[in-house]
Amino acid sequence: MAMTGILRPGHVQLRVMDMEEAVTHYCDNMGLIETDRDDHGRVYLKCWDEQDKFSVVLEPSDRAGMDHMAFKVRTEQDLWRFESNVKNFGIDTKRVAAGELNGCGERIRFTAPSGHTFELYAEKEQVGNGLPTLNPAPWPEDIKGMKAIRFDHCLLYGVDHDENIRLFTEALEFELTEQIVDGDVQVAAFLSCSTKAHDIAFIRSEEPGKLHHASFLLGSWEQVLRAADIISMKDIPLDVGPTRHGLTRGMTIYYFDPSGNRNEVFAEDSYRYPDSPVLTWEASNVGQAIFYHSRQLVDSFMGVTS
Amino acid sequence: MAMTGILRPGHVQLRVMDMEEAVTHYCDNMGLIETDRDDHGRVYLKCWDEQDKFSVVLEPSDRAGMDHMAFKVRTEQDLWRFESNVKNFGIDTKRVAAGELNGCGERIRFTAPSGHTFELYAEKEQVGNGLPTLNPAPWPEDIKGMKAIRFDHCLLYGVDHDENIRLFTEALEFELTEQIVDGDVQVAAFLSCSTKAHDIAFIRSEEPGKLHHASFLLGSWEQVLRAADIISMKDIPLDVGPTRHGLTRGMTIYYFDPSGNRNEVFAEDSYRYPDSPVLTWEASNVGQAIFYHSRQLVDSFMGVTS
Amino acid sequence: MAMTGILRPGHVQLRVMDMEEAVTHYCDNMGLIETDRDDHGRVYLKCWDEQDKFSVVLEPSDRAGMDHMAFKVRTEQDLWRFESNVKNFGIDTKRVAAGELNGCGERIRFTAPSGHTFELYAEKEQVGNGLPTLNPAPWPEDIKGMKAIRFDHCLLYGVDHDENIRLFTEALEFELTEQIVDGDVQVAAFLSCSTKAHDIAFIRSEEPGKLHHASFLLGSWEQVLRAADIISMKDIPLDVGPTRHGLTRGMTIYYFDPSGNRNEVFAEDSYRYPDSPVLTWEASNVGQAIFYHSRQLVDSFMGVTS
Amino acid sequence: MAMTGILRPGHVQLRVMDMEEAVTHYCDNMGLIETDRDDHGRVYLKCWDEQDKFSVVLEPSDRAGMDHMAFKVRTEQDLWRFESNVKNFGIDTKRVAAGELNGCGERIRFTAPSGHTFELYAEKEQVGNGLPTLNPAPWPEDIKGMKAIRFDHCLLYGVDHDENIRLFTEALEFELTEQIVDGDVQVAAFLSCSTKAHDIAFIRSEEPGKLHHASFLLGSWEQVLRAADIISMKDIPLDVGPTRHGLTRGMTIYYFDPSGNRNEVFAEDSYRYPDSPVLTWEASNVGQAIFYHSRQLVDSFMGVTS
Repeated sequence: MAMTGILRPGHVQLRVMDMEEAVTHYCDNMGLIETDRDDHGRVYLKCWDEQDKFSVVLEPSDRAGMDHMAFKVRTEQDLWRFESNVKNFGIDTKRVAAGELNGCGERIRFTAPSGHTFELYAEKEQVGNGLPTLNPAPWPEDIKGMKAIRFDHCLLYGVDHDENIRLFTEALEFELTEQIVDGDVQVAAFLSCSTKAHDIAFIRSEEPGKLHHASFLLGSWEQVLRAADIISMKDIPLDVGPTRHGLTRGMTIYYFDPSGNRNEVFAEDSYRYPDSPVLTWEASNVGQAIFYHSRQLVDSFMGVTS
Repeated sequence: MAMTGILRPGHVQLRVMDMEEAVTHYCDNMGLIETDRDDHGRVYLKCWDEQDKFSVVLEPSDRAGMDHMAFKVRTEQDLWRFESNVKNFGIDTKRVAAGELNGCGERIRFTAPSGHTFELYAEKEQVGNGLPTLNPAPWPEDIKGMKAIRFDHCLLYGVDHDENIRLFTEALEFELTEQIVDGDVQVAAFLSCSTKAHDIAFIRSEEPGKLHHASFLLGSWEQVLRAADIISMKDIPLDVGPTRHGLTRGMTIYYFDPSGNRNEVFAEDSYRYPDSPVLTWEASNVGQAIFYHSRQLVDSFMGVTS
Repeated sequence: MAMTGILRPGHVQLRVMDMEEAVTHYCDNMGLIETDRDDHGRVYLKCWDEQDKFSVVLEPSDRAGMDHMAFKVRTEQDLWRFESNVKNFGIDTKRVAAGELNGCGERIRFTAPSGHTFELYAEKEQVGNGLPTLNPAPWPEDIKGMKAIRFDHCLLYGVDHDENIRLFTEALEFELTEQIVDGDVQVAAFLSCSTKAHDIAFIRSEEPGKLHHASFLLGSWEQVLRAADIISMKDIPLDVGPTRHGLTRGMTIYYFDPSGNRNEVFAEDSYRYPDSPVLTWEASNVGQAIFYHSRQLVDSFMGVTS
Repeated sequence: MAMTGILRPGHVQLRVMDMEEAVTHYCDNMGLIETDRDDHGRVYLKCWDEQDKFSVVLEPSDRAGMDHMAFKVRTEQDLWRFESNVKNFGIDTKRVAAGELNGCGERIRFTAPSGHTFELYAEKEQVGNGLPTLNPAPWPEDIKGMKAIRFDHCLLYGVDHDENIRLFTEALEFELTEQIVDGDVQVAAFLSCSTKAHDIAFIRSEEPGKLHHASFLLGSWEQVLRAADIISMKDIPLDVGPTRHGLTRGMTIYYFDPSGNRNEVFAEDSYRYPDSPVLTWEASNVGQAIFYHSRQLVDSFMGVTS
């Protein structure tokens, strides 16, 4: 089979401090769809063009941040294989029972060297993308706000960077697509398990387990403009954009949810294959690597995580 | 590893009746780049955002059509595995020596039940995409015409449709993404070895081994308009478009090269994963399936192959 | 003052055979907004980015077609001046009392040589564009369907073409921007009272007083695609498009309202000034003039009027 | 006639300190076309979709800035009428002989209260837009860089703001379209002689005769992105963007020519008519008025003029 192992980012569980504000933000402003709530007060959301029941879980908390990010693997055998890989790498894993998240099968949970919690699962209830599988229209009506298409990736700040990248590339079979280097030191690593420019990315940091942003796909640069307009119209705190990244070529805009978790919506980044060369950006050129047009790093963008 | 086996359509070898007219068409009008010529009079072309030395081979001939379509596999072991799979399926294979096509490694060649010749290879010389791997710009200057990004897929008309699809899905590990059905009969099958809506597609036909079109990716719907303008400005015979497909959602335009081989350029079709549902279009709705806006089949589009 | 006399197409009164179907079409599918109804059963509509109370009047009738098209003039003096001009041209005029159309001032009504009824008025109630005049957002929320921005122009088929164009250019001060000619015969004339490529256009015909289409502006080529999708999703009868015109360069799509009146939505046509050269298209090239990509005239497009 | 008096911004004469660097910037990077040079060392440029011989004059100098901005009026009578209007306003005028600028007719020159020099002229040699007037294509091939369509407007910083706006609206028949106000004080005025959101704009300042930027039209938001990419690829000093203005709704990016004159390229701002309401932005909301997304004024944008 052509795609094996880890298929995609499956969901991100975000801590939010005011659930109804958060639901308004993610649903009314960004266009996600609420699909369920549970006894822990968690709210389950999906983007319209995802088949699975949820890709974002909002968890009530007294602080912002990422509880965990989960990847969907292709088969149950993949799940046990990765569990074994992670253990062999020297990291403890824990099994979380099917149903602990509504509609999700058994999960393998572990803490990566970066300080972040990750999970893997092979099964999640499919609810469809709002279009029939027989003679579907190209898009459903009544999607709100920015009309986010799918949860796409996270960028994370964490410790023990090199060991962490080794975990992802050796035990979890991700591939390095792009990187920022400062001499011999890899400052940032963009990793893919597909033909996307990134399914996850890590920045070398001195603080463990931080979320820089959770990112969602839009349909075009015109839709990035529309998202930018909505950000101002709805008084959403903008961070940076609209602009293009040097890294991945994506057209992007960054802003914050009401709890201070950074979101990105973006369009049209580049594609790659396993035999594509790794692209490298020098730390001396990091401004252009990150914001291709302004070439200026922004304090809020570099310094604020959740 | 996440992507295994067949990675992508690697190249298509097209027969053309006037080489210089063909080179003008593919290079000046569509934006491909000539990378080599050989003793057989073949001309090697690549799209700008491909790493490999070529993705289109133009072969001098007295008739139009597709000599063969080739897929790049990830490893040499994959090559031998697929050779064995194809043989076990009951189809003879032949090894073509490395270097028979300039810069291409050893190829496995076979004729599919549809009547088309396919090849697999694991190695091809990489020449890069015209951008450095250190601090690359998002696009190179001086790309001509339609600025085709990559060779994307072929749509083929052939015989013995069901057996052919079985070869591709069982022996070659493609996955069915979308189909047109007429009652119990599958009229068209769209197959993917990646997250693309199709890497190859087949139409049930009574004539073996026909090319409907070779397709190339553009960057946006605005670039499809620009391609449409160029088609008229350059007196390129238009077939259909610009429009959207129901199948795959792609925005598209079709036209013919000077020998009568149909080309497509398109943008932004949908993505899928191995666990995405198969989408089905009914023959009674085939007009909308193919041309979502007009819902009208066009005689030239349905009837002309090369 | 820089703009004098006739400012713009002010409204078109269309005959429709089923009012509720028509309102659904123009409001739900195209995004116009209902602003009033009157004792004659007429329904008043406006596009979102128009200041005036209405730009389309739907009139209940047993046949389709255009009752009249009206132009807004800058001042009351302009109104009397044009009344005099039209009379001096040898055409009877009639004054229609203020309020005969809700919110519209006194109108001058006359039948042009082409057989169409036109009106001029200097006053119409302004209701705004749904945005405040203090710190306005770039667009209002909750606009439906195609999000038509404004009523832009009509294209009309009529008799006595040359005399008709003389009326519009001499008495009404329109300027010829583009034309189709067949030898010495002007087949089509595009006329502007602004910097637009056309505010009205006429086709030489043997039948008087026919409407070819009423046209509405969209924001971009991406919005033309979206309109095309909606046309298919809502089972609206498509005529032609999406494509580009040679004449005016506009990106366009044509379809019919439920009564058979043809509509156009389009984006981004060219601009002109009074000192721009007239552009001429030869009848031998009329296909490309009208549909720049296909170069093919379509029977329904050429033959059907209302 | 529908458009009278001042038709459009006809040209801007900019002082540059290194002519060949300036020509590279305006021609190779922005896509203007050199049409002439004169004995004073001045270089004449036009954008591709302008009919007149030039819209930018580069003048060799030891400092940056705007020598003058000129408007084309419709007729010679308009020229004498405006000359009289300006004199009656109490401002001296001077006639500059036809041919002093190559291909330009007699000009009326005066210094406005703001401290800027303006000129009016009724005649300029037309060289066409590179397309035939018979069966023209929608765009010419071989336009370079950003492919600027036309010189569109200037924004100027000057003194004696209220008197200056009175000159433009009373003597020159411009109309106020949008403004920024701080209590009773008008901080910025956007003025139109057409259906454009602005043909010129003024900012109240304490220094006379300063250029904030000369602005050029692009075809779409996608072309603004492409301009942004070129800015970074060509090491052009970026000021701000890509983003949208609140004022005029335009999608925009700002940067500097090699002498430090600020340029803007933008797309798709709003349209207006003489009876459109004036839009007002409050000084307390000036950030959003200027940069709709970030709402942040940028020091370089506010403080740097030439």
